[in-house]
Amino acid sequence: MTDQPIPSISRAGRHGPTIRDVARLAGVSLGTASKALNGEGRLRQETREKVMQVAREIGYRPNDLAQSLHRTRSRTVGVISSDAFGRFTLPIFQALEEVFADEGVAVFMCNATDDPERERQHVDQLLGKRIDGLVVTARRADRRPPVGPLPAGLPVIYVYSEPEDGSALSLLADEEAGAALAVDHLVAVGCRRMAHVTGPERFEAVQQRRNGFHAALARHGLKAEPSHCVTGNWSEEWGRQAVAQLFGSGAVAPPDGVFCGNDQIARGVIEAVRERGLSVPQDVAVVGFDNWQVMTEAARPPITSIDMNLADLGREAGRALIAMIGGEAISGLKRLPCTLVQRQSTAR
Amino acid sequence: MTDQPIPSISRAGRHGPTIRDVARLAGVSLGTASKALNGEGRLRQETREKVMQVAREIGYRPNDLAQSLHRTRSRTVGVISSDAFGRFTLPIFQALEEVFADEGVAVFMCNATDDPERERQHVDQLLGKRIDGLVVTARRADRRPPVGPLPAGLPVIYVYSEPEDGSALSLLADEEAGAALAVDHLVAVGCRRMAHVTGPERFEAVQQRRNGFHAALARHGLKAEPSHCVTGNWSEEWGRQAVAQLFGSGAVAPPDGVFCGNDQIARGVIEAVRERGLSVPQDVAVVGFDNWQVMTEAARPPITSIDMNLADLGREAGRALIAMIGGEAISGLKRLPCTLVQRQSTAR
Repeated sequence: MTDQPIPSISRAGRHGPTIRDVARLAGVSLGTASKALNGEGRLRQETREKVMQVAREIGYRPNDLAQSLHRTRSRTVGVISSDAFGRFTLPIFQALEEVFADEGVAVFMCNATDDPERERQHVDQLLGKRIDGLVVTARRADRRPPVGPLPAGLPVIYVYSEPEDGSALSLLADEEAGAALAVDHLVAVGCRRMAHVTGPERFEAVQQRRNGFHAALARHGLKAEPSHCVTGNWSEEWGRQAVAQLFGSGAVAPPDGVFCGNDQIARGVIEAVRERGLSVPQDVAVVGFDNWQVMTEAARPPITSIDMNLADLGREAGRALIAMIGGEAISGLKRLPCTLVQRQSTAR
Repeated sequence: MTDQPIPSISRAGRHGPTIRDVARLAGVSLGTASKALNGEGRLRQETREKVMQVAREIGYRPNDLAQSLHRTRSRTVGVISSDAFGRFTLPIFQALEEVFADEGVAVFMCNATDDPERERQHVDQLLGKRIDGLVVTARRADRRPPVGPLPAGLPVIYVYSEPEDGSALSLLADEEAGAALAVDHLVAVGCRRMAHVTGPERFEAVQQRRNGFHAALARHGLKAEPSHCVTGNWSEEWGRQAVAQLFGSGAVAPPDGVFCGNDQIARGVIEAVRERGLSVPQDVAVVGFDNWQVMTEAARPPITSIDMNLADLGREAGRALIAMIGGEAISGLKRLPCTLVQRQSTAR
């Protein structure tokens, strides 16, 4: 085996080879590799030696995080979601699962669908499986009652979700800074009369994104017309209606840049602007939010959008949960950065 | 308690009150209600009597399905998906979970993302939790290698997915009959020159839907021009390109009805037809497939579409799995009906 070249190591982004690499190269299951490396379980001596040899050859070192997992009871973590595993939870969950899969930890999901009784039932079921940690995620980044009651000491993390009482670590996207990225970009491409078309007032996301919009404008010495800041719902139809409001009145000069609360609104805005005989991006540049490719790439022109990097939130949550399972105490609120993905709707 | 009016019973659609109703009205958890009704576990006599009294008052009868679950080991079923819990798996999973939640059975999901090694790992993890049954679901209804190896006798169901070897029960939507519904509807609103714009050839869904299209046309004594049946990808952009092909050549009369392989294609077709100065539905009626409301309702006009009723597949899977856990042997392939949801794109 030493004569053969070592195949490439999977999972870029983690430092060095993982137990997954050892298992793959030794031709055994993850469970077997884990037993061999930890000197646990019943294995044939030959298998154990083969695994150890591969581990030495590729320089596998169980890291601190992986080691901390050996103290766990079930090598299982639970996820409960009120998003029904939709557009927002999905990238978070996938990233979370990647982190744990590399260490042979199972992730089980339950779907809470905003029903408190159902949620309690799910938590009971997960606790019944002796989970080592719990991740709570949601369709909306709004504050919510804490999950519970939970056994003292069970690590809990809220992702894209926040407990009302601040009792646990909460990981969120920095939506306010994300909105500022949109404004900075619109200013950079020459827009001066900015509008903001967004979703329902009651959403935390609407408030965060709007705050970021106004704060960034102020930094640039600009100010939006009050009549250019409008709330409605999250649909394309609302985006189209908003254009009639923003461009229909002769009272103030129409906007030359529109920051939209999500990509569906942005798509409606773009279509309606085009139908007024104006050009996007030449006459009006448009930025969306969420970077939902089904929308951003099908629109004409494709939409520049703010990405919340939900996979980063998931990875961060995975790493934090492993550290907490290992005994570290982590709490508080942490916001991770958004990024701007540039497309033709602002290319001027 | 007998003097109080009985609150309304939850979960319409199931016959009679469930154990969930008993638990709620007695103010106890589902687990407690289950123990009390089955005479298991350690409970205070007072609690047990209260639960029994509520059960009698509301006429709760444990049904055969629920009874069969008492034979299970863990009151847990597993779901593995290669859909990453996206658009197709989601309604299936929700329905499945409804069925099991009523009986206090936990449903744990794992995400296989088309990676066979990861899938094997997930199956091992679920088996480690002593699941009573397994549901396999997917992003595409294509045939796939069977999941395994599994312990003999473990009930397994494939939903929107089919094992290559026919080894287990597989529940699918009758996409061929769904396509026929689209054709029947287009004929009924007066279309005679039908086109079919669909996705990549290699998808089982493309083949099923196309077969249904041609068979239904033949039933009506119609035949599509070969140049009017075109395959591309699943995007709006392809729908727009296809219109240039279908309406651009002067060789044959352009179609007056277009059946599209999915709703994104239909949306692109509708936009491009409108941009040629033709009216949808007057000049060209358009039907989509999947009934994905983000697309069907945002299009102008909104799109008539075929719904695969994935929630029905989920419910049927839940009931079948419970029966199998109870000892019934069920296998083979079962296709459930699709329905047509009419909107303005065919309203003439």
